[in-house]
Amino acid sequence: MEMVMISDLATEILIPVCGVIGILFSLVQWYLVSNVSLSADREAGVSNGKNGFNDSLIEEEEGINDHSVVAKCADIQNAISEGATSFLYTMYQYVGVFMVAFAVVIFVFLGSVEGFSTKSKPCTYSDNMCKPALATAAFSTIAFVLGAITSVISGFLGMKIATYANARTTLEARKGVGKAFITAFRSGAVMGFLLAANGLLVLYIIINVFQLYYGDDWEGLYEAITGYGLGGSSMALFGRVGGGIYTKAADVGADLVGKVERNIPEDDPRNPAVIADNVGDNVGDIAGMGSDLFGSYAESSCAALVVASISSFGINHEFSAMCYPLLISSVGILVCLITTLFATDFFQIKTVDQIEPALKNQLIISTVLMTVGIAIVTWVTLPSSFTIYNFGEQKVVENWQLFLCVAVGLWAGLVIGFVTEYYTSNAYSPVQDVADSCRTGAATNVIFGLALGYKSVIIPIFAIAISIFVSFSFAAMYGIAVAALGMLSTIATGLAIDAYGPISDNAGGIAEMAGMSHRIRERTDALDAAGNTTAAIGKGFAIGSAALVSLALFGAFVSRAEITTVDVLTPKVFIGLLVGAMLPYWFSAMTMKSVGSAALKMVEEVRRQFNTIPGLMEGTAKPDYANCVKISTDASIKEMIPPGCLVMLTPLIVGTFFGVETLSGVLAGSLVSGVQIAISASNTGGAWDNAKKYIEAGASEHARSLGPKGSDPHKAAVIGDTIGDPLKDTSGPSLNILIKLMAVESLVFAPFFATHGGLLFKLF
Amino acid sequence: MEMVMISDLATEILIPVCGVIGILFSLVQWYLVSNVSLSADREAGVSNGKNGFNDSLIEEEEGINDHSVVAKCADIQNAISEGATSFLYTMYQYVGVFMVAFAVVIFVFLGSVEGFSTKSKPCTYSDNMCKPALATAAFSTIAFVLGAITSVISGFLGMKIATYANARTTLEARKGVGKAFITAFRSGAVMGFLLAANGLLVLYIIINVFQLYYGDDWEGLYEAITGYGLGGSSMALFGRVGGGIYTKAADVGADLVGKVERNIPEDDPRNPAVIADNVGDNVGDIAGMGSDLFGSYAESSCAALVVASISSFGINHEFSAMCYPLLISSVGILVCLITTLFATDFFQIKTVDQIEPALKNQLIISTVLMTVGIAIVTWVTLPSSFTIYNFGEQKVVENWQLFLCVAVGLWAGLVIGFVTEYYTSNAYSPVQDVADSCRTGAATNVIFGLALGYKSVIIPIFAIAISIFVSFSFAAMYGIAVAALGMLSTIATGLAIDAYGPISDNAGGIAEMAGMSHRIRERTDALDAAGNTTAAIGKGFAIGSAALVSLALFGAFVSRAEITTVDVLTPKVFIGLLVGAMLPYWFSAMTMKSVGSAALKMVEEVRRQFNTIPGLMEGTAKPDYANCVKISTDASIKEMIPPGCLVMLTPLIVGTFFGVETLSGVLAGSLVSGVQIAISASNTGGAWDNAKKYIEAGASEHARSLGPKGSDPHKAAVIGDTIGDPLKDTSGPSLNILIKLMAVESLVFAPFFATHGGLLFKLF
Repeated sequence: MEMVMISDLATEILIPVCGVIGILFSLVQWYLVSNVSLSADREAGVSNGKNGFNDSLIEEEEGINDHSVVAKCADIQNAISEGATSFLYTMYQYVGVFMVAFAVVIFVFLGSVEGFSTKSKPCTYSDNMCKPALATAAFSTIAFVLGAITSVISGFLGMKIATYANARTTLEARKGVGKAFITAFRSGAVMGFLLAANGLLVLYIIINVFQLYYGDDWEGLYEAITGYGLGGSSMALFGRVGGGIYTKAADVGADLVGKVERNIPEDDPRNPAVIADNVGDNVGDIAGMGSDLFGSYAESSCAALVVASISSFGINHEFSAMCYPLLISSVGILVCLITTLFATDFFQIKTVDQIEPALKNQLIISTVLMTVGIAIVTWVTLPSSFTIYNFGEQKVVENWQLFLCVAVGLWAGLVIGFVTEYYTSNAYSPVQDVADSCRTGAATNVIFGLALGYKSVIIPIFAIAISIFVSFSFAAMYGIAVAALGMLSTIATGLAIDAYGPISDNAGGIAEMAGMSHRIRERTDALDAAGNTTAAIGKGFAIGSAALVSLALFGAFVSRAEITTVDVLTPKVFIGLLVGAMLPYWFSAMTMKSVGSAALKMVEEVRRQFNTIPGLMEGTAKPDYANCVKISTDASIKEMIPPGCLVMLTPLIVGTFFGVETLSGVLAGSLVSGVQIAISASNTGGAWDNAKKYIEAGASEHARSLGPKGSDPHKAAVIGDTIGDPLKDTSGPSLNILIKLMAVESLVFAPFFATHGGLLFKLF
Repeated sequence: MEMVMISDLATEILIPVCGVIGILFSLVQWYLVSNVSLSADREAGVSNGKNGFNDSLIEEEEGINDHSVVAKCADIQNAISEGATSFLYTMYQYVGVFMVAFAVVIFVFLGSVEGFSTKSKPCTYSDNMCKPALATAAFSTIAFVLGAITSVISGFLGMKIATYANARTTLEARKGVGKAFITAFRSGAVMGFLLAANGLLVLYIIINVFQLYYGDDWEGLYEAITGYGLGGSSMALFGRVGGGIYTKAADVGADLVGKVERNIPEDDPRNPAVIADNVGDNVGDIAGMGSDLFGSYAESSCAALVVASISSFGINHEFSAMCYPLLISSVGILVCLITTLFATDFFQIKTVDQIEPALKNQLIISTVLMTVGIAIVTWVTLPSSFTIYNFGEQKVVENWQLFLCVAVGLWAGLVIGFVTEYYTSNAYSPVQDVADSCRTGAATNVIFGLALGYKSVIIPIFAIAISIFVSFSFAAMYGIAVAALGMLSTIATGLAIDAYGPISDNAGGIAEMAGMSHRIRERTDALDAAGNTTAAIGKGFAIGSAALVSLALFGAFVSRAEITTVDVLTPKVFIGLLVGAMLPYWFSAMTMKSVGSAALKMVEEVRRQFNTIPGLMEGTAKPDYANCVKISTDASIKEMIPPGCLVMLTPLIVGTFFGVETLSGVLAGSLVSGVQIAISASNTGGAWDNAKKYIEAGASEHARSLGPKGSDPHKAAVIGDTIGDPLKDTSGPSLNILIKLMAVESLVFAPFFATHGGLLFKLF
């Protein structure tokens, strides 16, 4: 085996350094955002003629912006931040109980594999002695807990910065769209870099600490590390589902009474559910998405590491090569750092129509730079050829082949991003056709929207299929895992443009609530419309990477359960496939119905307030925002439990009673079916939202012929938008987690299922 | 090998006798329906005081029923019948061209397997000599053409009897709901028995004629027979898709202008699209469904026969055992005959609320009787143990095991039927909840409806999974094929209750158009509401059986292509699985968009007529029905081609360029994904339709609180109903055919793909 160009020491240093750079960069961005002062608290009552701005030369500033507006914005931001924080605390309490219980399950199940024996055993894939199953049980449990905590931190910090930035974006919108854009984008970057760096550092530290115990037993070490992915994804599940139900219950409830019945604008401060709606954006789209992508990142790293540990890297203890997945992520942070500067420093947005291109350029720049980054990492850290574990045999791989695996994942991500943009941006014909179908009412709008979502699946699936084919053929499951990592290597940029969306959405809401002028609302609306598209792109990435990650985890599970084929032509596998393909439907039925029921409760409360609080419609009395926040919180906590249990218990039940073959079928089935529903649901929802915005903005002759707000086509578009809400923000994105989580859970419990599973078939 | 209890001669006689009995029974039913005289032609201008009835003692008859009503009904029926006939003729012309082209493709592709050699070759599975591939090519082509023709006949005759019966049902509704029910049900039975008997007889004759050439080469004989299934299903595809687009374009178009814009009732004669709408029911729900179920029947028989031919039955030339699938169908005809008498003669419907139970009893009675029938056939025709081909090896099966295979399919059908009824009938809480959600508008209605559809998938999938597990474990692919046949063994009853739906729907339409009283309309509405549920049940059966049939065909394909495992853990198979799971979405996108576009054209035409024909709204001028019929016809013919090509070309392209492994993946993927979409789409649509009917009927306190017609909740319900139309009558049911047809096409072309396929992988 030839020497690689990078020494183990350099690797040991490079990874944490990149992580720290990421965190520092994120802090710098935070500092820059904090320069926009929300001075109402400090300067309350003191009029210094600068309206709370450090920058006293505000050319475009408008007459109405006295400091009471700033104070109002600060108040609203506080209300949103408090609501979000209190929801997350409540959720973490409930989920915490569950996590402890599940940690016990992991320890007991995995410990039982060798009857809680404390004796070492011969390794499966090398000739060394390996640590006992009990150690794997203990360390998997610890990794699980750490993964869950890291996920909580990722989501929570994301929410904090988002609720810190939204009012600042509103205030900056007074100075022009460019300033507002930079504020929103920087805030997104804070989240993106914190999360990417955090995920990398924690994983790196865990590996190094665990190694103190495991020593040369890399097989056991990386098996235990898989718990990290499980912890991250379990938290993400509840974050996504709970947050998703929260945000959409509030949104749908607010819209149904406010827009449809009372005919008041979106985000009108008279609407009692308006704060809950804005809180929802932060707990669902920000915290939920953050946890989700962190989960994907953690899982694909774990999948790659566990396969590598039973390949030549692991067996021969080549540390640098073993760390290849982490090095890819490290370089990714540097690449994203440069990419971010293109949006914030090298170029400046001046007009509304530059927003979407600027965001799109982020995708292109990061992808191109990262391709170079991957090439460098590959040639520096990998020997020119090595062997990879491939279901019972070792497969020889050349380093250029592995480069292609990572690159194909990266570029597939870009393709998915572009296709998603095409189908959800109102600059192109698909969304315009959907808007046009509103002429004949809500029914045709829904029919065209559903058809659009179904159609938008085609190219992403081909892109994923090609990535899978290339990486699978070149480097088996390791190839798939690194392809997923390739897609996620620009996660910092991806998250930045993704988080940008809800921040702009909130900024618009705050502008409306603070009673700012129409002109400012137009700017925030433009930011928001671009945000809808980037949110859809973010979901596209999340789904695409989830597909690759789950396949990699599935492969790792199969390897760890020591199965060598998963033959569709056996009854056990086929029924698994069929039932697995059904699970996303079951799950979606639960989450959609949850949103519906929670929204109905919200509708009742909002109606009650409008009917019983005198002067509310006239704007002389204030609504009871807190009660709506409470309804959303209670409903989402209660409703997230059944879908959560479905996902968490299915692998346990199937593995224990039906065994690993059926479980393999279930995983494959839910993967191939779930991806389709997830993509179509988010794109349908995104398209409806933007079709509505297209009519509202009235930027073209065609759009004006459908409008204005309140016209029949617009009403039909609002109905579509409302239906799309749970599709795009609750059930669709939660499905990523369903497929990933079932796979990683199966992987963690694989030794248990392989030893004690399939009870039902053993009995009969 | 022990002797079986039935001689080959008895088998030779029993099958055609049962077929002939079925046809005779169907003729008797037709005669009974024709006793209801549509005498307007005969007695035009002659008032004989009997209002055109042979029965002069009509107790419940109403005052308004002078003979002009009868004449009107006859006129309307003629218009519907002419429209349907002309559409089917036009469609058959286009499809005919395609069929001829495809027949050539079959001949050339299959002939090329051995380079058009005319020499005999050694058999694959026995030691005999087998006929050359060229013979299989020729006979497959002939079987294909015969299958297509039989399918055309099935659909066409069904349409004829339906358009013959609808006005008669309306007229009988004057005498009471019981009489109307019997007329509609008998007419359905005509179609059911004709189709079941026809399918059986033609298949039986083809086998016997082909045997004259093939002699002892049963392997080649039954390979060639598979063309029959392909022909049947290809026609069914176009029938379902074309008919589905036709019916829903007309329906949606009529509703959008009539109900929503002009606020006139459904089926109002002033609506120009009303005749097209009624024609649609006959070409879509009747002719399309007939072709579809005939296709399932033909395919499951072919799948069972082709697997049997390479099992001990075929190798040892045991004729009676070989004919087991046909004998099951033969006994099924007798069982359904007795079952029908329960609805028409043994009991009589007197009140509206007896309709649904009567139809449900049909399902129960036929299933119980058929279980006995299957037991008899199994013990009489099968040796107590025999071997079945199981992917490269022979598996020993006991006769009681095979009995269980057939029975489990039969009972799974009943379970699916009941679950479908539960989710789509407005007597139960799911539909009532959907209706209730209309309080908050169309958006919540759609969210709850979609969630209901997703949820309704769960139990049917478990039922199908259990059937597959049992039959697969006991008797491999033969078990699956006979399980499918078990589910289809009561096809005559299934089709009768299924066809009953559109006939009642049309009867209601005719009552409205002929200006009959509100009381009569109420009766036909009650018949129709039950019909919506039975239509959903019929679709449930069609989907469930399609799932089993496609799996059986898939198994037969794999056997014929000489693959022994389909391993998910290979890149070729996995990408097939992923892309296959995407195909139903692609297909649905096409069909839904087609319905949308065709409906928009219809809307424009209907609006144009309302705006330009003076006196139309006042009822003093007649609309131009023919133009609407033409629009539906043209649109559906044009729009059915792309989805048709997608389904027909995919197996050819995948097989030729990517080879049999990828094709296996595609088949498995489209099967497990398509079943879910198909079930959820039909149930969602059915539920919306009945939620609307629930509000309209106002039969309970709750329902009245949502109504009456024209209230806001009712308007929301109408929107849901309109969205559901393409889901339940176009894209949903067409998906059955997608999964079946791709499987049977792969089976027919298997030798070609195995020999010349996978070009792309061979080149690179």
